[in-house]
Amino acid sequence: MFRTEICEILGIEYPIILGGMIWVGKSELVGAVSEAGGLGLLGAGGMSPQQIAEELENVRQQTGKPFGVNVPLMRPDSEEMIKVSIQAGASVITTSSGSPKRFTKMIQDHGCRVMHVVANVSFARKCAVAGVDVIAAEGYEAGGHNGADEITTMALIPQVVDVVDVPVVAAGGIAGGRGFVAALALGAKGVQMGTRFLATEESAAHANVKAAVVQMQDDGTCVTGRTTIGPTRAIKNRLTAKIIAAEKEGASREELFEMIGEGRSAKACVEGDCEDGSVYCGQIGGNIRTIKSAREVIEEVIAEARAVVESFPSLAQA
Amino acid sequence: MFRTEICEILGIEYPIILGGMIWVGKSELVGAVSEAGGLGLLGAGGMSPQQIAEELENVRQQTGKPFGVNVPLMRPDSEEMIKVSIQAGASVITTSSGSPKRFTKMIQDHGCRVMHVVANVSFARKCAVAGVDVIAAEGYEAGGHNGADEITTMALIPQVVDVVDVPVVAAGGIAGGRGFVAALALGAKGVQMGTRFLATEESAAHANVKAAVVQMQDDGTCVTGRTTIGPTRAIKNRLTAKIIAAEKEGASREELFEMIGEGRSAKACVEGDCEDGSVYCGQIGGNIRTIKSAREVIEEVIAEARAVVESFPSLAQA
Repeated sequence: MFRTEICEILGIEYPIILGGMIWVGKSELVGAVSEAGGLGLLGAGGMSPQQIAEELENVRQQTGKPFGVNVPLMRPDSEEMIKVSIQAGASVITTSSGSPKRFTKMIQDHGCRVMHVVANVSFARKCAVAGVDVIAAEGYEAGGHNGADEITTMALIPQVVDVVDVPVVAAGGIAGGRGFVAALALGAKGVQMGTRFLATEESAAHANVKAAVVQMQDDGTCVTGRTTIGPTRAIKNRLTAKIIAAEKEGASREELFEMIGEGRSAKACVEGDCEDGSVYCGQIGGNIRTIKSAREVIEEVIAEARAVVESFPSLAQA
Repeated sequence: MFRTEICEILGIEYPIILGGMIWVGKSELVGAVSEAGGLGLLGAGGMSPQQIAEELENVRQQTGKPFGVNVPLMRPDSEEMIKVSIQAGASVITTSSGSPKRFTKMIQDHGCRVMHVVANVSFARKCAVAGVDVIAAEGYEAGGHNGADEITTMALIPQVVDVVDVPVVAAGGIAGGRGFVAALALGAKGVQMGTRFLATEESAAHANVKAAVVQMQDDGTCVTGRTTIGPTRAIKNRLTAKIIAAEKEGASREELFEMIGEGRSAKACVEGDCEDGSVYCGQIGGNIRTIKSAREVIEEVIAEARAVVESFPSLAQA
């Protein structure tokens, strides 16, 4: 059932990966995705090494299957985060927001796999040179931190797969079987989904955040931070309006940070404030209407994908 | 071979439509696409009604197959453009940049088909209410004028097809068989391609523009005009850098127009000035490496699509 080389490399049943999401991808969601046959990734961005170890201990209580940790390389203690993760049983480390050269060999020397997240072709080439096992190519429609080049999944995947021999996972804009098959058609060997798993029962996101996702429309997100802080996609709200207004007036990086405040994604995801907090979410949120279990999500993606593929032969006849 | 309901509605062999491109989609390209089994669309944006009639007369010399005209409704003489087009033998009118209600019934009363171009779900709903025959849903990765909501093809198509009964054509990010199959997987019944046909032998674009497309990389385009004029995607050059700098300084609509000048797309496409003219181009231009005939493009899309579809059954097995 859609077994690709990604399944072999990561030791999973379905080539479906949980996007690493800060405050959202905690042990319950990670364990549920892995146990259902995908790859659960701990969103370790807001966790101390000690918390990572505890969360992964919880994951191991839930599943004997492979799981991983997403480590943003901008964290000053990223090396310690990686080592703790491996000691606590992670078999895959995904790295982002930094050079794939830094830790790839070290992680592989520990017998683990490395996936690096990129948003353009030149970084994909660097990943191939660094010897990563899997490249996750993420399009502009994705939620959260976003590439400055704004290359969309549809345009990015074929351009990346044409220049690297490393298997590519598509991320951004995928929430069901149609997107899954589209990603495979473009040349990806699997998908990474964030927003779809954000709106699951096991997601650690505040109930208000899950409700905001299932209520949003196609035009419900926007990108802020283009001018200075770095682009981020979130659901439109009072905070994004405030940031956009300040950016129009030419606010500096410091002014923006001061005005917006620290921990603005925690304000939404942990405290449930969906007006003054950042509700990271992809554009495909407009296609998500119900909160399900992670297992249901995975099973529905595969069932829908099978139906899509089975509809093709009649189209392909002369 | 990939016959969908779009083929029946438009009377064509392959569900592949030439995007309406100002200065680029003239009679030679329109005739070549239609004669090869797709739907050629005259890019009438820069033409007088008299020129439209002359161009369509030339198309009829080249092919007895159906062809159409793209009419931007922002043109004050759009009604006359439509009437002249129908008199000159167009069987499909695609309308954009305006309300689908305005001319749909009038066009259909003349026995022609109407396709309206949208960039979000709410406009797609309006198209369905207006009774258009086909909806072209165009993602943010597309070249030229662009939707303000920045919804990408991957996110847009499934959300549109879920709410309308009208067949949908996907546009934006598609230049080959992989994108074609991806579009069908997402629920579209056909594709519209602009940039791929821009870089063909029959395209009326200046040779410098075609060369710029085949040389560009994935990150080679940008969007300007977000602040006031309206978003437009073009190849990065001296002009886009100038616009972006002025926008950062808060230039008004009038200041921008004055600085940039009229006819900036003609400056590139007609005069061949790819530094001070606007080179409209989609992100998928980074995947285009050779200038081919329109027939070769269509035949390669179908052959590649067939190969993609034939690769699926092995993945879909248990």
